[in-house]
Amino acid sequence: MTKENPSLPGFRDVLAAAARIAPHAHATPVLRSRTLEAMAGCELHFKCEPLQRAGAFKFRGACNAVWALDADTAARGVVTHSSGNHGAALALAARTRGIACHVVVPEGAVEAKLAAIRGYGATLHRCAPTIAAREAKAAEVQRGTAATFVHPYVDPMVIAGQGTVALELLNAAGTLDVLVTPVGGGGLASGCALVAAAQAPGCQLVLAEPRGAADTAASLATGRLDHDFVPDTICDGLRGTLGAPGFEILRRHGASVVVVDDSDTVAAMRLLWTRLKLLVEPSSAIALAAVLQQRERFAGKRVGVVLSGGNVDLDALPFST
Amino acid sequence: MTKENPSLPGFRDVLAAAARIAPHAHATPVLRSRTLEAMAGCELHFKCEPLQRAGAFKFRGACNAVWALDADTAARGVVTHSSGNHGAALALAARTRGIACHVVVPEGAVEAKLAAIRGYGATLHRCAPTIAAREAKAAEVQRGTAATFVHPYVDPMVIAGQGTVALELLNAAGTLDVLVTPVGGGGLASGCALVAAAQAPGCQLVLAEPRGAADTAASLATGRLDHDFVPDTICDGLRGTLGAPGFEILRRHGASVVVVDDSDTVAAMRLLWTRLKLLVEPSSAIALAAVLQQRERFAGKRVGVVLSGGNVDLDALPFST
Repeated sequence: MTKENPSLPGFRDVLAAAARIAPHAHATPVLRSRTLEAMAGCELHFKCEPLQRAGAFKFRGACNAVWALDADTAARGVVTHSSGNHGAALALAARTRGIACHVVVPEGAVEAKLAAIRGYGATLHRCAPTIAAREAKAAEVQRGTAATFVHPYVDPMVIAGQGTVALELLNAAGTLDVLVTPVGGGGLASGCALVAAAQAPGCQLVLAEPRGAADTAASLATGRLDHDFVPDTICDGLRGTLGAPGFEILRRHGASVVVVDDSDTVAAMRLLWTRLKLLVEPSSAIALAAVLQQRERFAGKRVGVVLSGGNVDLDALPFST
Repeated sequence: MTKENPSLPGFRDVLAAAARIAPHAHATPVLRSRTLEAMAGCELHFKCEPLQRAGAFKFRGACNAVWALDADTAARGVVTHSSGNHGAALALAARTRGIACHVVVPEGAVEAKLAAIRGYGATLHRCAPTIAAREAKAAEVQRGTAATFVHPYVDPMVIAGQGTVALELLNAAGTLDVLVTPVGGGGLASGCALVAAAQAPGCQLVLAEPRGAADTAASLATGRLDHDFVPDTICDGLRGTLGAPGFEILRRHGASVVVVDDSDTVAAMRLLWTRLKLLVEPSSAIALAAVLQQRERFAGKRVGVVLSGGNVDLDALPFST
């Protein structure tokens, strides 16, 4: 992969991110399960980001973005719009540096998630539940505070930070034939692509995407970003649209996409809970569902599976009881 | 602690067990959570036995018992009565040695658990759901096969195997002020007592026991085994009665007991699921509940908490939704 676009992050940025976040982020364990491997017919090396701080890989990118700021810029704080894992991750990352964090959240967001963001010390700003409203509110907060905007998956420092997931997984698991990661906005997936290209050129990158938000599959198939869809999936972390940098990196890398039905994702989540004993969220379980859907493709291979996060609402479990 | 009773295991047996099971058992991770530590007001080092093979610490003791047999004895197989974690653990341990395993299970046991035991290759033998019936059936199987009976918590090799939990926890966490472990039949608790006495004489041993099966608290208070109760608790792993060896070891060691209400155990389980991201069963969560119940006692201390297993029936979750 050549680096043509200077605004895109590269492998060196991932290495710099690894050094930058090391004092703050956990090097999460890589777990295996003989039972799941027997079911899948391949070796499965699960990278366990539910055990990351704030419960998801998102802390890596947010932490890298926060600590990459020079002191004067950092002192003015950071801002983002996200009622999900990125909001909590940025709030916690800002706290590790002792700076202010503003998070724009839509009316109607789940109170438990907002409490988590507030618990990490961020200031919440409410807005109407539309993309236009949240962007306007974020711009307003920026004007008022001069805080730096940290986008959840377009920011190059965020992408580089997420790439440290693959760096650690390859270090722990050794050579892999395939690396499977969920794809939503593309920060994690493209960060992993940068690492695979540099450190594991023989390793295929497979992206797991919900059928109800399969814009990455469409975009890579047509060669241009396709944002024309209304997300409909249980994978709340994957409802966003692929960002331009992620698209560019993934397209050049030649990543392929497996589109997964929610029912298969829920079944995989149940397997991960009961066999791996890890509370993964649907947006993570989809990666195992992709492997189980295409057993022949993965048969006998050494497969890395990124379990991206574990922030689940126990009051809204999808298991039928 | 002097070793008066030659049938009781000692610290050397734990060390031998550690060497014996090392090729088969996982050295499980020790996890921490800043949020839970802030809530508890102390350092919490969680020993994560849900990540053990077969999902609970029980594999350690079963594995030690199976591999301690001489070749001729082993060739005749092993037998036990347990529809819970010990049955599955013994089945898997027997499989690691390639020998037969017979498990006596009561009519009415949960089918999913029986499927797990069968899945590890054991032969099931049904009996009426009484203690007399299961002991009679186990004796019958023994007569027919000459298999060795492996009791879930009275067998000295089982107790020694469970002690490896504390050995690993102290190795990973360093000096601890307190070690908290659940207590049911007493195999885990007394195995940990052997290790604490030898390796951490300044470390208090605290046992967490459900109010609906608090026979250990009663037995240690009166100085004699008290089996006169009908268990009534959500902690299905702790419904058994304290065994004589466990009683003897715990009494000499001076362990203390914290009696916990099921409602507090369920609340602690929810915390562990959502904050530690680990699927622990109620019989594990009780250890954290004990710490949260007596905050002043643990304040500022370095506390080891044994999370004993993660075999949960997702179709019978105790969370009110």
